[in-house]
Amino acid sequence: MKNYYSSDFKLGILGGGQLGRMLLAETQKYDIHTVILDSNKNAPCAEICNTFVLGDLLDFNAVYNFGKTVDLLTIEIENVNLDALDKLEEEGLKIFPKPRDLRIIQNKARQKNFYLDHQIPTAAFSHYAYLEELKHSYQNNIIDFPFVWKAARFGYDGNGVKIVRNIEDLEALPNVECITEKLIPFKNELAVIVARNASGEIKTYPVVEMEFHPEANQVEYVICPARIEKQIAEKARELALKVVRDLDFIGLLAVEMFQTAADEILVNEVAPRPHNSGHYSIEASYTNQFEQHLRSILDLPLGNTASKVAGIMVNLVGEAGFSGDVVYENIAEILKIDGVTPHLYGKKETRPFRKMGHVTIVDANIDIARAVAQKVKETIRVISK
Amino acid sequence: MKNYYSSDFKLGILGGGQLGRMLLAETQKYDIHTVILDSNKNAPCAEICNTFVLGDLLDFNAVYNFGKTVDLLTIEIENVNLDALDKLEEEGLKIFPKPRDLRIIQNKARQKNFYLDHQIPTAAFSHYAYLEELKHSYQNNIIDFPFVWKAARFGYDGNGVKIVRNIEDLEALPNVECITEKLIPFKNELAVIVARNASGEIKTYPVVEMEFHPEANQVEYVICPARIEKQIAEKARELALKVVRDLDFIGLLAVEMFQTAADEILVNEVAPRPHNSGHYSIEASYTNQFEQHLRSILDLPLGNTASKVAGIMVNLVGEAGFSGDVVYENIAEILKIDGVTPHLYGKKETRPFRKMGHVTIVDANIDIARAVAQKVKETIRVISK
Repeated sequence: MKNYYSSDFKLGILGGGQLGRMLLAETQKYDIHTVILDSNKNAPCAEICNTFVLGDLLDFNAVYNFGKTVDLLTIEIENVNLDALDKLEEEGLKIFPKPRDLRIIQNKARQKNFYLDHQIPTAAFSHYAYLEELKHSYQNNIIDFPFVWKAARFGYDGNGVKIVRNIEDLEALPNVECITEKLIPFKNELAVIVARNASGEIKTYPVVEMEFHPEANQVEYVICPARIEKQIAEKARELALKVVRDLDFIGLLAVEMFQTAADEILVNEVAPRPHNSGHYSIEASYTNQFEQHLRSILDLPLGNTASKVAGIMVNLVGEAGFSGDVVYENIAEILKIDGVTPHLYGKKETRPFRKMGHVTIVDANIDIARAVAQKVKETIRVISK
Repeated sequence: MKNYYSSDFKLGILGGGQLGRMLLAETQKYDIHTVILDSNKNAPCAEICNTFVLGDLLDFNAVYNFGKTVDLLTIEIENVNLDALDKLEEEGLKIFPKPRDLRIIQNKARQKNFYLDHQIPTAAFSHYAYLEELKHSYQNNIIDFPFVWKAARFGYDGNGVKIVRNIEDLEALPNVECITEKLIPFKNELAVIVARNASGEIKTYPVVEMEFHPEANQVEYVICPARIEKQIAEKARELALKVVRDLDFIGLLAVEMFQTAADEILVNEVAPRPHNSGHYSIEASYTNQFEQHLRSILDLPLGNTASKVAGIMVNLVGEAGFSGDVVYENIAEILKIDGVTPHLYGKKETRPFRKMGHVTIVDANIDIARAVAQKVKETIRVISK
């Protein structure tokens, strides 16, 4: 067993955003030396990791050279240069999650094909290399409105996903590789985070329930545990486990799912890292998702995924109409309420719908937590000077 | 209300040790810019605060010049140059806790006199400017063995405290200003952490119970809640509140107390900052002591001090006989147990009895937590290469 703690062991992290920042709270607890690559010198992690390296995550040389300086490599964003990771892995570097899995996940068409190949239930889809192909398909009545359009790559926080309802929506789409899906009428959006280490130990977090903002297509509340029937939760959990096992995944995998009107569970998409749907775990769980990610990639025993209390997360996104130096309005107001913890991501500039932070609300009683979450949402505003 | 978050507001912290390190986890959550002064370039905070300044905390110019660069100043260690703080405060800098309170607390004789002046129950004591004075007192039969000797200043982690049982012990004492106390036969050592902000809001954490290592005179277990009768806990809480009110204290004050055989509660000593006896709060409390310290000095509403679950803390101190590059033995073993979280302080070198970290054990059932704490204590070892 490698001596990771207070030693010369170096953990490389590709990406220095808010997920990296929350991971650093855990590497600090374990005193693990961190080296981070990001192209933004003001990235949320820049000043608080041990060593910060400026470089483009999609550039082969930047990622390869960075990888040569560390003992183990992980990611906090999946849009990284995979050719560099393949070469580093060939040369013996441990990389978790594995580049092979990142390659499947990074491209939504490949991800969907993986589900098909493994009989993992998911919404039916079509794959188009260019926008023209998609238009052609529409003109030939192969698909019809409304449908869900997803860019095959580089989507984040609801970017790269659109509901296409008419010809204007179709014309406005960018000319990129994409998939389309039937619009699924669902009862609930659920998520399950699964952790697995190299020794094969595997643990699931409780099923959470997500409420989306109707306009921004971003998660507004994440509620743990999901207020669903036990057998539905168990079905979602089993499905998430199947995805992880089929991928032979190592690390933390967030599996987003739909519960349909007929109580089918369909996999929507996965994220190979700590995820917005697991932020509640910092305050609510025995082992939070960031510590669990660390345990899984270092092949340490996995921690208890149970909750101490109910947890609800509210995303803090930039208010429409405000851009520039951020001001968080009414933080003192929300701090007056029991069980409320803000997490601000260290971004100096706000933009409409930019993820700037989140607030966790915990309480032994989930209904109280839900009421407080509503209050928090109505009170705090992310504006600019 | 000042805009502290993601802004150009600068929080200065005197001291960059483990308490500062755990405080940084909270300033990161609130995205508050931190500037830290410490004389050790490898201090636990050096690489993870926003700006690190090298300088002697006891040097007037180092502290004064540092203070001129920040918007609000706090401490993570009380042994700092108070003349510099007085001058900074005169010149308008906000400093919490207040220099006046630090002056009372920094010197144990002054602290004890404060208790006497305010009818705060404490063990009877004598004060000596030099060791010769103390010896003279012994030769004249004014005091007798055994007694407790405490250096008036610069004690930490059990250093600066001795039980003097015979003439050899007396001869071995250093020649410094000191106090002596009668050896109190006590049932329990208790502590209460109190937070108070400038607006006068005041909250107490639950009473905790401390078990000391017999040799090293360091806390071995901190148990929250203390397993004592309710009226004893209430008495301890009231006494801690009285100390805070009598000091007109702003910030976090840890009040250590004895419960005597006759169920009297005596104040032993206080610490004007987050304290070892509150580390359990990171995992167990709704609002941990470091976040609460931040809330109190920034005059934000105080958080809920209740616990989600029972918490026990085990100190990790360097094993006798080992010095040099630290190795934490059997961390993976303790991670196999539910509810166990290690905190390593980022010190590269171990020494016998040096505080290197702590482990928190949480469980809904305090008896299970206590059994696990014992197991953790017996399993993990802090040794050297």
